[in-house]
Amino acid sequence: MARTGRPPARPLNAPAIVLVRPQLPENIGAAARAMLNCGLTELRLVQPREAWPNERAREVSSGAFEVIDNARVYPSARAATADLTRVYATTARHRQMIKPVETPRAAVASIRADIAAGGRVGILFGPERTGLENDELTLADRLLSVPLNPGFASLNLAQAVLVLGYEWFQGADETPPRRLVLNGTRPAERAELMNFFDHLEAQLVECGFLRIADKRPSMVRNIRNIFLRADLTRQEIRTLHGIVKDLSTLRVKGSKRRPKTEK
Amino acid sequence: MARTGRPPARPLNAPAIVLVRPQLPENIGAAARAMLNCGLTELRLVQPREAWPNERAREVSSGAFEVIDNARVYPSARAATADLTRVYATTARHRQMIKPVETPRAAVASIRADIAAGGRVGILFGPERTGLENDELTLADRLLSVPLNPGFASLNLAQAVLVLGYEWFQGADETPPRRLVLNGTRPAERAELMNFFDHLEAQLVECGFLRIADKRPSMVRNIRNIFLRADLTRQEIRTLHGIVKDLSTLRVKGSKRRPKTEK
Repeated sequence: MARTGRPPARPLNAPAIVLVRPQLPENIGAAARAMLNCGLTELRLVQPREAWPNERAREVSSGAFEVIDNARVYPSARAATADLTRVYATTARHRQMIKPVETPRAAVASIRADIAAGGRVGILFGPERTGLENDELTLADRLLSVPLNPGFASLNLAQAVLVLGYEWFQGADETPPRRLVLNGTRPAERAELMNFFDHLEAQLVECGFLRIADKRPSMVRNIRNIFLRADLTRQEIRTLHGIVKDLSTLRVKGSKRRPKTEK
Repeated sequence: MARTGRPPARPLNAPAIVLVRPQLPENIGAAARAMLNCGLTELRLVQPREAWPNERAREVSSGAFEVIDNARVYPSARAATADLTRVYATTARHRQMIKPVETPRAAVASIRADIAAGGRVGILFGPERTGLENDELTLADRLLSVPLNPGFASLNLAQAVLVLGYEWFQGADETPPRRLVLNGTRPAERAELMNFFDHLEAQLVECGFLRIADKRPSMVRNIRNIFLRADLTRQEIRTLHGIVKDLSTLRVKGSKRRPKTEK
C-alpha cells in the first residue's frame, strides 16, 4: 500500500527530493537510484501518473529499495512541502519569477547551513517535458538551475536529480582530489631511489650509453626525472633493479652479436 | 555507414568520451545526450555489442545527433586511444593498479591544463556491470573515481558520463552561484525603500499597531528587516505602497465594525 500524506515532522539530515507529477515509473526508479548513490533517501511523489507502489520503478532503481519503498505520495506540491522550512524548485527557464536562482553547488552549501540550523529542506522537480507550473514555483524560496550547454540544456529527470545529489555528496566528501592507492606497498624512500639511480647510471656508463662525458650530467638529470615523475614504490624499485640487471646480462651475453661501437 | 578507425589527429578542445564495449544502445543514447548537455561532442565506441549506427541510441539521445552521428567505432580501446596524449579510465574499484586516482573535479582541472598545453585527452568508460578490464585500465595514465555513497556506489553508464561532463562544464562556467533575475525591472534604490518605510510606519502609528512608544524602535527595525531581506525591486515597492494604502482605506471604512482598542 502506498504511504500517503504528511510524514512525521522529524529532522531531515539531507534534503527531501520531491518529484511533482512524474510521468514514467522508469524515471522515478532511476531518480531513486541516483538519490541513493548520493546518500539521499527521502523521496516524495506528488500525483505520479502511474499507480504507486510501482514494480517497474522498483526494478529500474537497481536495488535502491530503501528509497523506493519509503517514498510517500501527496495530493499536491503544497501538501508535499507542508512540513518543510526551505523549498527549492528546479527549473531550466526563469519564467516571470523574481526569485534568487542558485547553481547546484551554491544551493547545497545553503542547504547544509539550513539543515545545520535545524531546518527541513526539500527540492521540487517538475514533470518530464513540461517542468513545474508557475503556482508550484511559487511554493519555493529559491530556484535551482543547472548551468549547461545553452543550446541543449534539457536534462532527463533522473539526471537532474543526480546532478543535485552529486553536489550534495561532494559537499561533505573528503576524498583527496588526487591520491595514489598503494595496494599494501609503500612509497620508495629517497635512499632506495638513489641506490637505483647509482645502479642504473653505473650500468649506463659501463655499456657506453653515457659515454660522452660532457653530455652526461644533463642526460642523468633527464633520466632521473623520468623515474621521479613516476612516484615509485619500494616494490617497483626492486623490479627496476631486476630489469637493469637482466638487461646488462643480456648485453654481456649478446655482445658479440650486437657490438656497441662509437659512431 | 559507421565511421570507423582512427580519426584525424585534429586538436580536441574537450575530452573525448570513449565507451568501451557498451551493451545497451539506450545507454549510448543517454550518454550522448548527457555529453551534449555538457558541451562534449567527441564520442568513440569500442566494440559496441549492438550494430552501429543504431536507431534506438539515436532516439534515446533526444536530439543529440551531432554526438551520435559523428561517433566513431574502434576495434579496441588501444586503437580508440591511439591519437590521445592523456588517457583517463573510470573505475569504481581500484583493483591492483598503482596509479593516481582523481576525483572528477580534480580531473577536469588537469584535463583543461593538458588541453591548454596542446594535449588530446580521452576518458574511458567500461561496459555496464563489468567495468573496464585490467588491460584496458593499463592504457590509462590516471584513474577517475566518483566519490559516492560507499554502500551504493554503482552509477549507470550515462550517469557516470553526466557526472564527468557536468564537472567539465562547471569548470569553465561563469554563472554566478546566486543571482536574482529581474525580468526588466531593477532593484529598488535606498531612497525608494526608505519612502516606503516612512509610508508604512506612519500608517502603523496611525492605526495603533505601533502605539507602545518604547517598543516602537525595535518593532520598526524588525519590520524593516523583513522587507530588507526580500531584496525588493522598484515595481515591488510600488505594489507594497498600494497594499498599505488600500489596507488603510479598509481600516477607515471598517473602523466601526472592527474597532482597534487598547488592551
